[in-house]
Amino acid sequence: MLNSKMAERAAENLRQVREKRPLIHNITNFVVMNFTANALLACGASPVMAHAPEEVEEMVSLAGALVLNIGTLTLEWIETMVKAGRQANERNIPIVLDPVGSGATRLRTHSAKRLIDELNIQVVRGNASEVLSLADAGSLTKGVDAQHSVEEVAETAVLLSQKLGTTLAITGKEDLITDGKRVCRVMNGHELMGHVTGTGCTATAVMGAFLAVCADATEAATTSLAYYGLAGERAAGSANGPGSFQVALLDALYHMDCDGMKEEVAISVNEG
Amino acid sequence: MLNSKMAERAAENLRQVREKRPLIHNITNFVVMNFTANALLACGASPVMAHAPEEVEEMVSLAGALVLNIGTLTLEWIETMVKAGRQANERNIPIVLDPVGSGATRLRTHSAKRLIDELNIQVVRGNASEVLSLADAGSLTKGVDAQHSVEEVAETAVLLSQKLGTTLAITGKEDLITDGKRVCRVMNGHELMGHVTGTGCTATAVMGAFLAVCADATEAATTSLAYYGLAGERAAGSANGPGSFQVALLDALYHMDCDGMKEEVAISVNEG
Amino acid sequence: MLNSKMAERAAENLRQVREKRPLIHNITNFVVMNFTANALLACGASPVMAHAPEEVEEMVSLAGALVLNIGTLTLEWIETMVKAGRQANERNIPIVLDPVGSGATRLRTHSAKRLIDELNIQVVRGNASEVLSLADAGSLTKGVDAQHSVEEVAETAVLLSQKLGTTLAITGKEDLITDGKRVCRVMNGHELMGHVTGTGCTATAVMGAFLAVCADATEAATTSLAYYGLAGERAAGSANGPGSFQVALLDALYHMDCDGMKEEVAISVNEG
Repeated sequence: MLNSKMAERAAENLRQVREKRPLIHNITNFVVMNFTANALLACGASPVMAHAPEEVEEMVSLAGALVLNIGTLTLEWIETMVKAGRQANERNIPIVLDPVGSGATRLRTHSAKRLIDELNIQVVRGNASEVLSLADAGSLTKGVDAQHSVEEVAETAVLLSQKLGTTLAITGKEDLITDGKRVCRVMNGHELMGHVTGTGCTATAVMGAFLAVCADATEAATTSLAYYGLAGERAAGSANGPGSFQVALLDALYHMDCDGMKEEVAISVNEG
Repeated sequence: MLNSKMAERAAENLRQVREKRPLIHNITNFVVMNFTANALLACGASPVMAHAPEEVEEMVSLAGALVLNIGTLTLEWIETMVKAGRQANERNIPIVLDPVGSGATRLRTHSAKRLIDELNIQVVRGNASEVLSLADAGSLTKGVDAQHSVEEVAETAVLLSQKLGTTLAITGKEDLITDGKRVCRVMNGHELMGHVTGTGCTATAVMGAFLAVCADATEAATTSLAYYGLAGERAAGSANGPGSFQVALLDALYHMDCDGMKEEVAISVNEG
Repeated sequence: MLNSKMAERAAENLRQVREKRPLIHNITNFVVMNFTANALLACGASPVMAHAPEEVEEMVSLAGALVLNIGTLTLEWIETMVKAGRQANERNIPIVLDPVGSGATRLRTHSAKRLIDELNIQVVRGNASEVLSLADAGSLTKGVDAQHSVEEVAETAVLLSQKLGTTLAITGKEDLITDGKRVCRVMNGHELMGHVTGTGCTATAVMGAFLAVCADATEAATTSLAYYGLAGERAAGSANGPGSFQVALLDALYHMDCDGMKEEVAISVNEG
């Protein structure tokens, strides 16, 4: 059953982003820097990308949220992420992590786990394979394979969220967000999103903007994904393929009306 | 009062860029590399991005102008910028600097100042906060705050330009360009430019193309901003939001007709 | 005379890419990362960008092809390319090299030659100047100048291909592909491709996807260029300039119908 309170919150959080224009500090991958910066601007937030070890602590101190993304990681960039993240933690600035490709190489899996171990991260956003790779092998009873559906992973995700002490946002055909108690689902979105690079990374960045204005990390994650997915639905209406879809997605994020949005976001909440 | 001689020069400089197709060497930030390269191509120039210390001197020697942009700086990249800049100076190749985020972190402010100190830079292009951060604290009498309008900063900019010995191009709702004597203003532009990432950085790159064909740096800066702003106005006519605006801006830069442009660029010049 | 067997192969190779969705590992330049990733997705392939020395061997082992591109090279990135390339060779994973800017600086020329020397590379794709810069000065009898037409370089390319032991794909108004015996030509394409940054780099990436499903490197190179060029022709029909062309190109790559394609690809083959 759709949760109308969450729908109200989605509209309210977007309104807050547009009003407060929070600075979002991204340490992210080269592939998506332009797209995520444009998406943050389209939402009403103010993006900055900065990765020099000499400035990340100062920069993150100016920010409303920190977005960490390991998509084109190196050891040096991970060090910088840790440095920025520690400063964020000290100042209670929320952090969202995108563990791109975790599970594909040991460097990615270890780096994602290291960030989660050393930092207090509010949300981890990834696809099912990425998020489930964060569980130690054998420590969770549910089977994990390459074809995870969001449905199959729900129970595992709840346990993993409890273990890691962070909200998990698993995106796919349907999105699943859990803090170990509540399980939220978002049914908005469009399949063309899977044909554009960085739509996941960009969801993470938009989540950062919502985290900057909403203290409940699970609500921020859920409502940002509903907003983003709904923008995708609207963009698909005017797109001729993945190229024009990416362009239309930015337009749709920008034009989203808070009132109309309340009627169309599709969120369910299961209080565990 | 609009300056028709400058309007003529704007058209002539664009004509020269298209005819000579100057190579523009960019050492710039990761966020805007694709967009600025595409904008330079759309203008008729030929972009190259190169930042390896082993090749920047050779590369810049082939170029008509050097564009330095500190948007995603590291200490290593600043060293490379100095190296390329020295070679550019030796060969009388003009340099334009974009001090992205100067004033936000000490690394950015110090790096921008270092580049200006160690190199002979023809134009610095930034927003008011960035440009005014280049003044030593207390060295200029006019107050500087976070909400600088171009109007408020005009007098300060003239003094700062004299002190730094470079043309300053401060972009905003209205652009102000000064070499410490002349004060030029450009009234072209569109508010959607503020909703697309890297429109400032891209203005700087296009300025590089004009510097490559026009020995008067203040004229090059002014006319390039008028061309760029006018392209923004035209792009806005066919855009549905920031995504489609960015695409339309490239189309408009490409299709700008030199004759029509003369009638629509809005430049004023105050000979100091 | 058009080669209908090659046209059939073009359609079949595209069908295979869409069916197998090969992972394409790119170690490429910052300017084009987003565009090439989107082009690979639009073709039906699955892109990954990874350049950390600690993970490239593991990543390339998962891939169907490796794309190396020196557009924003540094010495460190070249080392990583060698490391990934050796692993690719060991596992018989095909490699395509884009020697961006070879001939413009010594670093680029030497790096491209080093990669060709140390690795077994299946295809080198560049413009005429880049590819011909790979010949040692004086080692080839045909004159090489800045204005190479594909026609002028055909004979030189055949000799160079034999000498380097790799297929060469020289793109321009007409594309020429040779393995030292066969000489294939592709007449598809559109002049707007020259006004968008990274269309060459993206052709190389798409070639990687075809190499992942087609063991004959010369056929993979030829058919991918025909597919890509035909998508360019179709994109031009709905574009208003280079900005909208880039967007439309992604849409056209995505929508290409294998049957219609067979009628429109324009490939000739000269068995040497």
